[in-house]
Amino acid sequence: MTRTSLFPVEADPHVDTTRVAVSTVIFTLRRGAGSEAPRVMLPLVRRTREPHEGRWALPGGWLDVAEGLDAAASRTLAETTGLAPSYLEQLYAFGAVDRSPTRVVSIVYWALIRPDEVAAAGVFENTEWFDASALPRLAFDHNEIVEYALWRLRNKVGYSRIAHGLLADQFTLAELREVYEAILKRRLDPANFRRQVENSGTLIPTDRFRTGSHRPARLYRYNQDVELADRGPLGIRH
Amino acid sequence: MTRTSLFPVEADPHVDTTRVAVSTVIFTLRRGAGSEAPRVMLPLVRRTREPHEGRWALPGGWLDVAEGLDAAASRTLAETTGLAPSYLEQLYAFGAVDRSPTRVVSIVYWALIRPDEVAAAGVFENTEWFDASALPRLAFDHNEIVEYALWRLRNKVGYSRIAHGLLADQFTLAELREVYEAILKRRLDPANFRRQVENSGTLIPTDRFRTGSHRPARLYRYNQDVELADRGPLGIRH
Repeated sequence: MTRTSLFPVEADPHVDTTRVAVSTVIFTLRRGAGSEAPRVMLPLVRRTREPHEGRWALPGGWLDVAEGLDAAASRTLAETTGLAPSYLEQLYAFGAVDRSPTRVVSIVYWALIRPDEVAAAGVFENTEWFDASALPRLAFDHNEIVEYALWRLRNKVGYSRIAHGLLADQFTLAELREVYEAILKRRLDPANFRRQVENSGTLIPTDRFRTGSHRPARLYRYNQDVELADRGPLGIRH
Repeated sequence: MTRTSLFPVEADPHVDTTRVAVSTVIFTLRRGAGSEAPRVMLPLVRRTREPHEGRWALPGGWLDVAEGLDAAASRTLAETTGLAPSYLEQLYAFGAVDRSPTRVVSIVYWALIRPDEVAAAGVFENTEWFDASALPRLAFDHNEIVEYALWRLRNKVGYSRIAHGLLADQFTLAELREVYEAILKRRLDPANFRRQVENSGTLIPTDRFRTGSHRPARLYRYNQDVELADRGPLGIRH
């Protein structure tokens, strides 16, 4: 598969203009070999041009003049990674004067995606998945952007949203707890976790059980009545 | 006092470029005559040029190429309204293709400001305060932006933040409740409200009382240990 170049250098750095770019932080979980705990991962794209040639950067590109912000985020994400999440949420606009050799305001989106959706996207040249807690030095201010997205993930996302965004349709409470442990980077007490989830009203127990080497564990599903993301009063999409 | 023009028409609408603007939604409370309940108000600026000449618009202007986003929001707000809140929080980037005759991405900020700060700013030509729930048809998509800001205000802001942003340093629980009633547009049960606030840990009772026509009411103050706003892990300001 091919993709268009990120941040082509056709812009003259001496021209007194501001350009608008979009970038996306998209998180998934990946489980290592054996029983290793899942880790929060995100895709990065290796830059093939200056500035920061050779460095890893968030998927993204320039906003087209005839294209909305959401559409630009979806397009550039698909072109660089093949990923097409059902919903991208706007995270923040980054516009520090010195964040790039030319003046660039980046509208950053974020999303969660399930491991099976990642697998379906295939393999893209110059794109790799990284452990969010062990990143190299990225291009521009992208390390800072990822930190901000992780902070938002830790603080904002509720139980049901995690379940919907990162897990399969049905999952055990232990699997859900592992998601939380991966995001929060700490162990959670299983009994307390079970109590909190059951009190939240966001999960519905099914009649099915996961069987295996441990005792059977009940499968839960996400309560579809709970809204996945805060879209605002208008279901706003700009 | 003078101010620079908003959105000067020097941009050629036929040029294939995107420009970046900043706008600010800044809310305060204003009490009418007598015992009338306070209302959520915001300042608007009458446009003196096309497009939308004569319509009211949010305070704002173009991003300067050598200026950060926060700085641009503060500058344009001060130039058009004289207001200088201690903290502007980024709200959302609005970038629909058809929101302006030329392509404009607006980074919108929001803030709360106390009535005494409003009074200190003085009077600016072409600037008036409007009841947020009874706006005329505004320029561009600014009605939609205000709706989004009101939604954020209703959903996100906690007790202590309201107290800090809209009230004087010391206030009674009845005054605080009126703030909530103005924002939520509904009456709240006084006893329930008192219980919720006392349980929140965000207010500290003082030894002073407000006296007047009613029985003396204790004054409370904001707990300074509670962070005013979500600035992210880095106290991020771009």
